[in-house]
Amino acid sequence: MRPAELRALLRDVRRGRATPAAAARRIAAAPVERLEFATLDHERALRTGFPEVIFGQGKTPAQVTAIARRLFARHGLVLATRVEEPACAALAAAFPRAEVHERARCVVLRRRRPRGAGAGHVLIVCAGTADLPVAEEALVTARTLGSRAELVADVGVAGLHRLLAHRRRLRAARVVVVVAGLEGALPSVVGGLVDRPLIAVPTSVGYGAHFSGLAPLLAMLNSCAAGVTVVNVDNGFGAGYAAHLVNRGVRS
Amino acid sequence: MRPAELRALLRDVRRGRATPAAAARRIAAAPVERLEFATLDHERALRTGFPEVIFGQGKTPAQVTAIARRLFARHGLVLATRVEEPACAALAAAFPRAEVHERARCVVLRRRRPRGAGAGHVLIVCAGTADLPVAEEALVTARTLGSRAELVADVGVAGLHRLLAHRRRLRAARVVVVVAGLEGALPSVVGGLVDRPLIAVPTSVGYGAHFSGLAPLLAMLNSCAAGVTVVNVDNGFGAGYAAHLVNRGVRS
Amino acid sequence: MRPAELRALLRDVRRGRATPAAAARRIAAAPVERLEFATLDHERALRTGFPEVIFGQGKTPAQVTAIARRLFARHGLVLATRVEEPACAALAAAFPRAEVHERARCVVLRRRRPRGAGAGHVLIVCAGTADLPVAEEALVTARTLGSRAELVADVGVAGLHRLLAHRRRLRAARVVVVVAGLEGALPSVVGGLVDRPLIAVPTSVGYGAHFSGLAPLLAMLNSCAAGVTVVNVDNGFGAGYAAHLVNRGVRS
Amino acid sequence: MRPAELRALLRDVRRGRATPAAAARRIAAAPVERLEFATLDHERALRTGFPEVIFGQGKTPAQVTAIARRLFARHGLVLATRVEEPACAALAAAFPRAEVHERARCVVLRRRRPRGAGAGHVLIVCAGTADLPVAEEALVTARTLGSRAELVADVGVAGLHRLLAHRRRLRAARVVVVVAGLEGALPSVVGGLVDRPLIAVPTSVGYGAHFSGLAPLLAMLNSCAAGVTVVNVDNGFGAGYAAHLVNRGVRS
Amino acid sequence: MRPAELRALLRDVRRGRATPAAAARRIAAAPVERLEFATLDHERALRTGFPEVIFGQGKTPAQVTAIARRLFARHGLVLATRVEEPACAALAAAFPRAEVHERARCVVLRRRRPRGAGAGHVLIVCAGTADLPVAEEALVTARTLGSRAELVADVGVAGLHRLLAHRRRLRAARVVVVVAGLEGALPSVVGGLVDRPLIAVPTSVGYGAHFSGLAPLLAMLNSCAAGVTVVNVDNGFGAGYAAHLVNRGVRS
Amino acid sequence: MRPAELRALLRDVRRGRATPAAAARRIAAAPVERLEFATLDHERALRTGFPEVIFGQGKTPAQVTAIARRLFARHGLVLATRVEEPACAALAAAFPRAEVHERARCVVLRRRRPRGAGAGHVLIVCAGTADLPVAEEALVTARTLGSRAELVADVGVAGLHRLLAHRRRLRAARVVVVVAGLEGALPSVVGGLVDRPLIAVPTSVGYGAHFSGLAPLLAMLNSCAAGVTVVNVDNGFGAGYAAHLVNRGVRS
Amino acid sequence: MRPAELRALLRDVRRGRATPAAAARRIAAAPVERLEFATLDHERALRTGFPEVIFGQGKTPAQVTAIARRLFARHGLVLATRVEEPACAALAAAFPRAEVHERARCVVLRRRRPRGAGAGHVLIVCAGTADLPVAEEALVTARTLGSRAELVADVGVAGLHRLLAHRRRLRAARVVVVVAGLEGALPSVVGGLVDRPLIAVPTSVGYGAHFSGLAPLLAMLNSCAAGVTVVNVDNGFGAGYAAHLVNRGVRS
Amino acid sequence: MRPAELRALLRDVRRGRATPAAAARRIAAAPVERLEFATLDHERALRTGFPEVIFGQGKTPAQVTAIARRLFARHGLVLATRVEEPACAALAAAFPRAEVHERARCVVLRRRRPRGAGAGHVLIVCAGTADLPVAEEALVTARTLGSRAELVADVGVAGLHRLLAHRRRLRAARVVVVVAGLEGALPSVVGGLVDRPLIAVPTSVGYGAHFSGLAPLLAMLNSCAAGVTVVNVDNGFGAGYAAHLVNRGVRS
Repeated sequence: MRPAELRALLRDVRRGRATPAAAARRIAAAPVERLEFATLDHERALRTGFPEVIFGQGKTPAQVTAIARRLFARHGLVLATRVEEPACAALAAAFPRAEVHERARCVVLRRRRPRGAGAGHVLIVCAGTADLPVAEEALVTARTLGSRAELVADVGVAGLHRLLAHRRRLRAARVVVVVAGLEGALPSVVGGLVDRPLIAVPTSVGYGAHFSGLAPLLAMLNSCAAGVTVVNVDNGFGAGYAAHLVNRGVRS
Repeated sequence: MRPAELRALLRDVRRGRATPAAAARRIAAAPVERLEFATLDHERALRTGFPEVIFGQGKTPAQVTAIARRLFARHGLVLATRVEEPACAALAAAFPRAEVHERARCVVLRRRRPRGAGAGHVLIVCAGTADLPVAEEALVTARTLGSRAELVADVGVAGLHRLLAHRRRLRAARVVVVVAGLEGALPSVVGGLVDRPLIAVPTSVGYGAHFSGLAPLLAMLNSCAAGVTVVNVDNGFGAGYAAHLVNRGVRS
Repeated sequence: MRPAELRALLRDVRRGRATPAAAARRIAAAPVERLEFATLDHERALRTGFPEVIFGQGKTPAQVTAIARRLFARHGLVLATRVEEPACAALAAAFPRAEVHERARCVVLRRRRPRGAGAGHVLIVCAGTADLPVAEEALVTARTLGSRAELVADVGVAGLHRLLAHRRRLRAARVVVVVAGLEGALPSVVGGLVDRPLIAVPTSVGYGAHFSGLAPLLAMLNSCAAGVTVVNVDNGFGAGYAAHLVNRGVRS
Repeated sequence: MRPAELRALLRDVRRGRATPAAAARRIAAAPVERLEFATLDHERALRTGFPEVIFGQGKTPAQVTAIARRLFARHGLVLATRVEEPACAALAAAFPRAEVHERARCVVLRRRRPRGAGAGHVLIVCAGTADLPVAEEALVTARTLGSRAELVADVGVAGLHRLLAHRRRLRAARVVVVVAGLEGALPSVVGGLVDRPLIAVPTSVGYGAHFSGLAPLLAMLNSCAAGVTVVNVDNGFGAGYAAHLVNRGVRS
Repeated sequence: MRPAELRALLRDVRRGRATPAAAARRIAAAPVERLEFATLDHERALRTGFPEVIFGQGKTPAQVTAIARRLFARHGLVLATRVEEPACAALAAAFPRAEVHERARCVVLRRRRPRGAGAGHVLIVCAGTADLPVAEEALVTARTLGSRAELVADVGVAGLHRLLAHRRRLRAARVVVVVAGLEGALPSVVGGLVDRPLIAVPTSVGYGAHFSGLAPLLAMLNSCAAGVTVVNVDNGFGAGYAAHLVNRGVRS
Repeated sequence: MRPAELRALLRDVRRGRATPAAAARRIAAAPVERLEFATLDHERALRTGFPEVIFGQGKTPAQVTAIARRLFARHGLVLATRVEEPACAALAAAFPRAEVHERARCVVLRRRRPRGAGAGHVLIVCAGTADLPVAEEALVTARTLGSRAELVADVGVAGLHRLLAHRRRLRAARVVVVVAGLEGALPSVVGGLVDRPLIAVPTSVGYGAHFSGLAPLLAMLNSCAAGVTVVNVDNGFGAGYAAHLVNRGVRS
Repeated sequence: MRPAELRALLRDVRRGRATPAAAARRIAAAPVERLEFATLDHERALRTGFPEVIFGQGKTPAQVTAIARRLFARHGLVLATRVEEPACAALAAAFPRAEVHERARCVVLRRRRPRGAGAGHVLIVCAGTADLPVAEEALVTARTLGSRAELVADVGVAGLHRLLAHRRRLRAARVVVVVAGLEGALPSVVGGLVDRPLIAVPTSVGYGAHFSGLAPLLAMLNSCAAGVTVVNVDNGFGAGYAAHLVNRGVRS
Repeated sequence: MRPAELRALLRDVRRGRATPAAAARRIAAAPVERLEFATLDHERALRTGFPEVIFGQGKTPAQVTAIARRLFARHGLVLATRVEEPACAALAAAFPRAEVHERARCVVLRRRRPRGAGAGHVLIVCAGTADLPVAEEALVTARTLGSRAELVADVGVAGLHRLLAHRRRLRAARVVVVVAGLEGALPSVVGGLVDRPLIAVPTSVGYGAHFSGLAPLLAMLNSCAAGVTVVNVDNGFGAGYAAHLVNRGVRS
């Protein structure tokens, strides 16, 4: 139960729209639900503002679908990331209205559109065409959580004017997510242009002494620009999630 | 020239307190100043809201002091980090009112106290006594930049109740910085308790297969808690800086 | 020949149920048996209490089956781990009563059920759904060796209450095995809650800077909780084996 | 308060030797004590059977002494490991009856000798003379915690007969700790000789492609002997602690 | 032209069995032969005693076959290693009398059997069944070069008596090759038993923190037994070649 | 627009062959073109002398073809590297006159042959047959950019005379590219023979402790020959590009 | 004997200024000179255009001085790099006119000033103040070899305008050397601005996950800018040497 | 007791020069001697032909001296390697006739000169002046064990003619040891010139991406020359020992 839902429920009780007994049952629904292979943490929405997200890697299609069913029933909102093709098909079959983001390997289930949270917006900047799937995972995540978010693609540092052309947009954002493979230099350059929190996402795009993302990861951790924080290689989800938390501001 | 100074200057012009000519001279003061060994980026305060920070490592005491002099003359506010003992002494001699933070190896020079920026505050949580110097670097940084900030020490995960006792404080913060060495598990546990952006700082406290901070760095990058972003090993400065940017919100 | 069998045989001799000559022949059966591609160590059961375990990786189906035949003939008890699909099928064909544990990739052959060894039991705790195959390898191993063993699934540290709900069970165990991928923080948290030997198993569940299990391996080796020992990445077998040795206590 | 103390106190209450009020005061003594630089976890003794151990690395002599004072006042038993020379001197000055184990860099403070816990004993086996400091850290730890423990030195695998000469002793132990640098082969050889839990400790003794203990660490994690678990490089403390937990058996 | 052939030719000239002109033509045959994709080093047999060996990895079947044809025409003796399946088939088709060693992925072409070179023999010892392909590559190589060579399989250190049973054979060899995966402890144990040069071959058999052979490679490089030298992971060829050079002694 | 084209256009204007208006339109064509998934940097030809090169890895066939179309329309010259098989087919279908270099995985599109740039030529030297694809990528790149270039194959250091036979050719080149896998020793040997800039390319040809090119990469970075610079593993393109820049000399 | 000297000598012979006998003696002076601890390669000047450079690391002051003496006697030109303080003092004592470059740890001995080689010049660009020693090593090397060379300091990517202010200078150079620590992003940005060969030098300036230069080294090897080649960490000498070879053009 | 001594003793018995009782006492002298900190393996001389060698690293001067005393008393021949300065002084004080090899950090104690073992000799080749200490450790070791051995210094691959000048010496040796730092290319070049076993020793001479010897270690393990085996970084002792075993041939 997300905080807003809880408050709504309590208002309903005060206004007589829900009996205390019914409200009690709904609130008392066990915060932890046990499946054979998973222990669902329904209370997480209360604690952290969003229901548990399904991490698809290493789960069978049946497991993903079963977990999605429980979460959807309780929260009306499900985000599944790193969903492999078979699990994707299984979800689409089980939830005909599922939004499937193929390139980003994400699936979203929801009862209604989120309202924009926070006064600002998240800007996602991406160094190369091959980094797009990760950037889109960040985009889908931030939007599903309720933030407004936009994406600027293919503005790597070897063609600075491409980036400088977006300077105004960069400064208008509440928080910037920068996605880059190869040498991962883009966050340092962007970080010198803005006074916003900047979340850097290294990608595994590269070869040889790239070591599947180690090169840009190290570069970003050592950025000479202040205010840069970093997430795991290819972790668009984590960046989108953290960006939303920054953008949302304090819940009132 | 920080943005607020610039706005004040322009207001002075409008009100006739400053002649356009004088204001022009002051604004036109070259944004880049060249020393033999450094190219100072005075415009950075305009771009990113804070003057260039002096990174002390690898600079001689004479270089650190010379750079500090120029920055202080232009901005009235200087933060120097990773200042080795001799450079520290040189700064203290040159600026008798310097604030020296010994354990954190930081020196702050300023004309007046900052006002608290942002409505919220930064909470810095630290896993062990040996991680304190890094946590204090984050604390000094966030405060020097203008945020309110507090520190909770020695609440490692092997004694959960120590941490749980601070749950309320954790939830009251706008952003949480978590500093941990050894296995770096604290951010994951804290991340499951709050719905705030969490910036994780691995430290080099450990031995053997710790590889001077690699172990907690990897742990934090792989955190199962969403919303965790990471900075370099022992980079208290970077965490405090990013936390301030989150806390400050949008400048109006 | 396992120690219990040897003692039984010697008692039979004393009681006249077996002639010394027959017993001698049986004992004298060569402790080492040579196949073209393997040298079976039949004496291991005497030395370490359990016959040689077949490590399936890198062996052909024919090799696995041939070794299983010899071990089964001598000891009536065979455990094969990391059995690839074709070798699994070959074993199932050769031993119709084989117990095949698919997810754990283990096969067990035995003449009769083991009696519970030791007064206590082994508790296996697993951080995420994707870690289950490794946890089950530990479970199958401990049970095949004769220990009572139980499994608690999906109680990662980002939802502490899921774990705390099992506190009593944790304290009731003689030894705890903790299986975790991602950042591998679970052993540190569990280790702070119990006063039992804790065996930590990192898994390869993760991506990017996880390096196929290196991240949780380093985390576990650097755990701030005392009493934690570690086995190789994905080595559920090793953890289950060691846990059994702890649980069994001293043979009398 | 250690569990035995708590039980004794409660028995005293039942027998009228202590008033409930006094007992309540004593039990209620806050489980967490805050110093400026540390948060002492006094409840740990209750949870895990032994008071918090002081990890000396990265702590100043003043910090180590202050923490030792508080722990000693509450528990009458203190173990400090990785105590650098100055902190060692400070402790010896503050506690004239401190037992200082120089080579092992441990200091023990206690009101009375421990009684032997567990029916069995811990055997520590050490491959080379240069590994002795780590082996002795394990020895001091296990003994301080209450186990009987013995040490066999310099029985590396290149001279097998040295090891085989101790075969009987190896088999008599409840649990074996094997300490080795260089290639770390000793645990595999010992593991093939015994049916006891074996805790392997890699040491940083070596050079070149030893990478300060990485070589034996990897070797031990990949041991072909079943039942081997591993602790961090040079972590004699961790091995001694875990060995004690195994040896102690279940508290009754 | 191998040295023996050259001496034979020169003796033929002295004895009048070959005209100087013919001999000159034969000797003058260009030592380097250029194909489009390869530069054959025919002189190598003169310099090092054996014609160039074909390293199959990364070469197309057509390339392997073309090179083999030229070498066979000049030297009557070809060894190809790491021959992938298609190249293997191509060679078998082109040379109906090719000896194909499937498990070792080697192909040998020769006009006549080699005579045993050297007074001694090479003993190859192998820790586990899964290490056999590498051990056989060493065996085929040593024999093709002309040494007598034998193989002892599956005598890992966790069952020492299996190894000790071969002590006499170990001591009878001129040089010992030890092949081992997992923790790579076998060379240290064997090295303590013999006074012969010992060539250690790590294999990629293992998983997790084995890093595809890094673990035994480091172990072998750090062996506490003197006289151990090491080759690359899975490099049975290199070990067999070096062992032959040791065994052959000085050519007279 | 490449510099030469620009100069030609301006000459046309001066000579009245083009109206200023038409020339202005052509020059003003936007330097940055936005596709949904890419931001083309048309100005790069002006800045760096060659249009953007398409890096095929991680791009879909449709993306590669769309980008190629735009670049070809603007510049009449396209180089695509690391083109996977499907994208290769797509390009060949879309541009029937495309030059497809299969082994090098490059595709070149151009309106007319380049004239030889620079007075000298590029010599590419390759250690083994398996390194050829990388060497050919360098060859195709240098030639497409306009340099004369030649390739010498299979002259590894274990057969020095093969290399020494080319000494004259080595000295005749303006710049030498050396491609080598395995231990990567060739650049050091060649570097000692010539007084030309030498660009070393490590390849992923090798196995075991080769770590997919890490071994020769480290070797080349540590070369004892002065004047050696290095590019990424398997980066024939980068070496060919840099060699062309050296060879071309200063544009007049 | 450098090529120019050789040609001059031969001209002298033709003109009768030197007798053939004397010239022969001078040319015949042994190209290799053996000291107890070194084998001097006097012919190198002929082969590569410059006498052997003394690499000071790991050599005693006596060794450095002895080698310098021989080289100076033969070539009148000596460059010593990585000269530790004591060797520096020894050289200064032995050669009162030695040029000592303290920060760069280089010593130069020469009979006369070099004339500028090549029509162009080398531009060295340096990201931060702490990278200066490495940049100066490059500067001293290029100048000692005969190139004109300049240095631009402290123009890191977080303050792009500092760099862009030098755009004209960048384009005027024949070859650019870019020296950077931290994340090593500068070569990518500079590489996008120029059409010159660019030699990137990572430095060890940084901490934590910088791994003493590994981070910028990997970044530079993976640069998205074409035409970038890389030398070892802190290898200013190598970069200066290679840059000179590029700048010098073809000797005529 | 070395084998030769044992045979001499037995001959003395047969000839009546020693009573069986005395001989028995001498033979029966315990093969293992226990000190508090060491277990001396006196039988090793019997098994491997040479008494235990003292590895000085990590041992105190008192320990080194005590062990040396026992070994000298029993075998009349002691080799101590990696002897730190204080232990060196202690040995020199205790054994006035000790041979101290400073640069190689070895100390040798012996009653009489060894006779040359083996018909051949060991040739040690060293790439640079800074590699000499390691090369000398190999030299001292091989000579102390009884081989004839010679050293050729400073013949790195960037000056091939220096090496080629020694071609005859290379071919005359029974076994070649090649010591090299930096990129470690020398073994590959030498390996292509000889048909002898070649033992390669990487050294830690280098910087940056040399990783203290990792670069040449990997290079040597991946050598394209057949017959190359490798020892640990800086392990001159190991190379000298193995070379002696090869050179000695079979004891008769």
